[in-house]
Amino acid sequence: MDSLCVLDEGSSHQRETFATETESVFKVREFSAAAHQAIEWLANMLSRDEVEGVRLQRPVDLMARARSLMTKADLGGFDARRFADILELYLETGIKVNSRGYMGRQFSSVMPVTAVFEMVSAMAPQPASYYEAGQLANIADRLIEEVFGRFIGWPQGSFEMVTTSGASLANMTAALVARNRRISGSWNGGLAVGCASRPAIAIGEDAHFSVSRIAGIIGIGQDQVIRLPLNKQRQICPERARAIIDGAMVQGLNVFCLIASAGTTAIGANDPLPELAALAKRHGAWLHVDAAHNGAFLVSDQLRPRLAGLELADSFCLDAHKTLFVPALCTLLFYREKGLAETAFPQKDSYVFDPFEDEMAAVQSGVKNFECTKRPSILNLWLAWSLYGRRAFADKLEQLVKITRSAYDYFIDQPDFIVPYQPESNILCFVHQPPGLSGNSLSSLQLELRNRVRAAGRYLLSKVDLNGQTMLRIVLMNDRVGLSDIAGMAAEIRRHAGDILENESTKGGQDLPVGLEPEE
Amino acid sequence: MDSLCVLDEGSSHQRETFATETESVFKVREFSAAAHQAIEWLANMLSRDEVEGVRLQRPVDLMARARSLMTKADLGGFDARRFADILELYLETGIKVNSRGYMGRQFSSVMPVTAVFEMVSAMAPQPASYYEAGQLANIADRLIEEVFGRFIGWPQGSFEMVTTSGASLANMTAALVARNRRISGSWNGGLAVGCASRPAIAIGEDAHFSVSRIAGIIGIGQDQVIRLPLNKQRQICPERARAIIDGAMVQGLNVFCLIASAGTTAIGANDPLPELAALAKRHGAWLHVDAAHNGAFLVSDQLRPRLAGLELADSFCLDAHKTLFVPALCTLLFYREKGLAETAFPQKDSYVFDPFEDEMAAVQSGVKNFECTKRPSILNLWLAWSLYGRRAFADKLEQLVKITRSAYDYFIDQPDFIVPYQPESNILCFVHQPPGLSGNSLSSLQLELRNRVRAAGRYLLSKVDLNGQTMLRIVLMNDRVGLSDIAGMAAEIRRHAGDILENESTKGGQDLPVGLEPEE
Repeated sequence: MDSLCVLDEGSSHQRETFATETESVFKVREFSAAAHQAIEWLANMLSRDEVEGVRLQRPVDLMARARSLMTKADLGGFDARRFADILELYLETGIKVNSRGYMGRQFSSVMPVTAVFEMVSAMAPQPASYYEAGQLANIADRLIEEVFGRFIGWPQGSFEMVTTSGASLANMTAALVARNRRISGSWNGGLAVGCASRPAIAIGEDAHFSVSRIAGIIGIGQDQVIRLPLNKQRQICPERARAIIDGAMVQGLNVFCLIASAGTTAIGANDPLPELAALAKRHGAWLHVDAAHNGAFLVSDQLRPRLAGLELADSFCLDAHKTLFVPALCTLLFYREKGLAETAFPQKDSYVFDPFEDEMAAVQSGVKNFECTKRPSILNLWLAWSLYGRRAFADKLEQLVKITRSAYDYFIDQPDFIVPYQPESNILCFVHQPPGLSGNSLSSLQLELRNRVRAAGRYLLSKVDLNGQTMLRIVLMNDRVGLSDIAGMAAEIRRHAGDILENESTKGGQDLPVGLEPEE
Repeated sequence: MDSLCVLDEGSSHQRETFATETESVFKVREFSAAAHQAIEWLANMLSRDEVEGVRLQRPVDLMARARSLMTKADLGGFDARRFADILELYLETGIKVNSRGYMGRQFSSVMPVTAVFEMVSAMAPQPASYYEAGQLANIADRLIEEVFGRFIGWPQGSFEMVTTSGASLANMTAALVARNRRISGSWNGGLAVGCASRPAIAIGEDAHFSVSRIAGIIGIGQDQVIRLPLNKQRQICPERARAIIDGAMVQGLNVFCLIASAGTTAIGANDPLPELAALAKRHGAWLHVDAAHNGAFLVSDQLRPRLAGLELADSFCLDAHKTLFVPALCTLLFYREKGLAETAFPQKDSYVFDPFEDEMAAVQSGVKNFECTKRPSILNLWLAWSLYGRRAFADKLEQLVKITRSAYDYFIDQPDFIVPYQPESNILCFVHQPPGLSGNSLSSLQLELRNRVRAAGRYLLSKVDLNGQTMLRIVLMNDRVGLSDIAGMAAEIRRHAGDILENESTKGGQDLPVGLEPEE
């Protein structure tokens, strides 16, 4: 390399090269050692078949344990033992999502090949916002878009899909498209310039907290969130919604966006989309559907009909990291009309005259998503889809919905359980009601049952408050869960309830503690 | 399990158990096979020492190749060959971040052990917003917060740190805290209620596009973004900034937030933080520092002084996935005053009376970050820190800054290169100026050089437009890059420039194409 002649650092360069070669060998060995160790731990975890929930540790205790694993040296090194200790602590403290005792939450273990791919895409990153850096990621977006377009029934080329990091971000992005479109000049002018009427968003009573939060974030204000009432199946009731929106309009609110749910967090309910699409149209409002949980029904011939009307939405999103079993976060955000995606975050005009750069710009997502650095998480979905095909996803999802329905039927037959809502998805709420208990005592009991069942470590349930009543809630994300596990869980609930009530009658009916439930 | 007696599905349950056991064995084998394959590919990649940039493929060609790898079957299966083909295509299409030819962008390969951990955390997820699901992740937040507090010099217990997914989100989150605090009632009331003065944000001319975008998103409006002028080192000039903000106030703007940079995207400049802190204080404005790129200087005794004044900021963020070499996205968002983090997205009051739930709530991040499902990416940083210690990070970062400075000194000595800004970080801009070329022709040449160098596949550079002049830009993220690589890259630039100018003089000075550069 003759350019080196100009440098007077030749000899130090040789040392440098030698050092980096040694370092490189070291790096590869270290990587291999760590990876093989991790595979062993994970394979072992996947092979286990114990019924486990979570083992909660007091934060102060866990802090001490974690602290003891941190090297005291200013410059440490790879230490296989320390690495194993950290892996062990991690796996020990996590929810046992691979166990049949896990019934608590909307996340799950993933299709194993996608976890492997996470390692690959961390080591050889393809940030996915721009084609230059994320060639395959941007192509995968287009291929998955095509696949889902067929399920939705939208003509190829007429719609568009953007992947983003989570439904919170997807819902906010869609709301921005709606705001920028319906509140003219809001992107540049802001909302502080006197609007004739105050902009407002209408959402269902059971909408996820991240949806109601959008109004606070994008400058609409939480007070301008109109809560639409639900029917007995906890779906938005279109007739009452119409009256409420009409009333809001009269009071000077401009309801520019209606956000419906396909799969509420609480019970997995699907709002009546055809009616809500008509309602939105009537008011010139944008219809967005938060289908984070149930949107995956699209891939199943059996379940797809439950999403009837989704094709009428202006936009909707689904979380592939929930019900398509790929690593978080992988959210697909769909717009019915192509060209709207880039109006969420309008940029100054970009000019491209080079045909090659043009082609690249046409497939890349940069100006359409919030992220600048974006993980190529769509590739996990594309990879699994390419290997396993549609039915692998559909089969698992159908099984989860089926076993949830079986759990419903099971509880219906139990005289000491109430199951108020027939499940539309893989989420089921129920109340354990021992004879003679009602009202607040019944609510407190459910909470205490959630706590005790969790503390016992075999099952993990969640809880939800609906109509002033605390209920237990299961989300079945693990298709190895069978009816025997449901029955086992019910038996455990009864046992704890017996203990609690016996203890209470001894103590003279002390109040049970009130707890905080993380919302999902 | 006697509860099973009540079920009439006993026999089908037995079949079910058998099926899931078989499936489980299959799953483990598949996982192992895929993981071992991936390790081999990655170890091979890490061992290579070729000088490579990126091999760009036309989207239409890549689409065809990717499509051919998708199973045609409705139900496929794990196919080691197909998996290998996909891995190969992925690695082939990515930027060769592990090569000495990669000088283009702000992302890099990661510390190998963190890539391994990505596989673990995908397979056994600990969503990090809530303690129940992410015990270790939430503890790691506290431990890393403690470590960085010492570097910043903030007293333990007085400040607070939240991890989030990317600096775009961190910057927006901090801006919301500022807005909610200074524009009273904006979270609930929105911005459409007549403010006495229009809220505005002041940012530097070189602020990242995601920063200027915040005003559009949170309802302030892009027109209310005040651009502060820069000095010759492309840092915000405090004196001129003061005059501009004073002028804006007179015109009815309420500048409630000032966003400075520590490491601009363009050239890595650090704004003068002590002066800007004083300026913000004078106007009662919030000072946020986007230290996405240079914030990592905190870990180095040598580089930390370059961040003087950062401790005066109300908030700042840094991207551990940039200059702390962990997988994207891992952003640390710091607030000088504890208790403010939860005012970004104010929630309805939560009540917790159970002491154990209280302890858990105290360490968890749920109400403080935008995400609901949040990857436990802080664990990558905590893991690497626990194994390797501070100096592993500091050494690498110092080496990158040192070699960038050497590259500057090298170019200074080349008569046909202009290097307008002495680097403060690992980013360097320069212009190749063959004799007789200036103005638009010089800009066009730089762009064409970027394109040709990229197309040749050995080096990857980026480009940037500053003061109407297109410049070439390198970001050194790979510490194996040495001066010989810089010299090699310069030689390649000269060769392409020779070709271009020869070709031009033959053709009679046709206009060179104008291209789109992805912003980082």
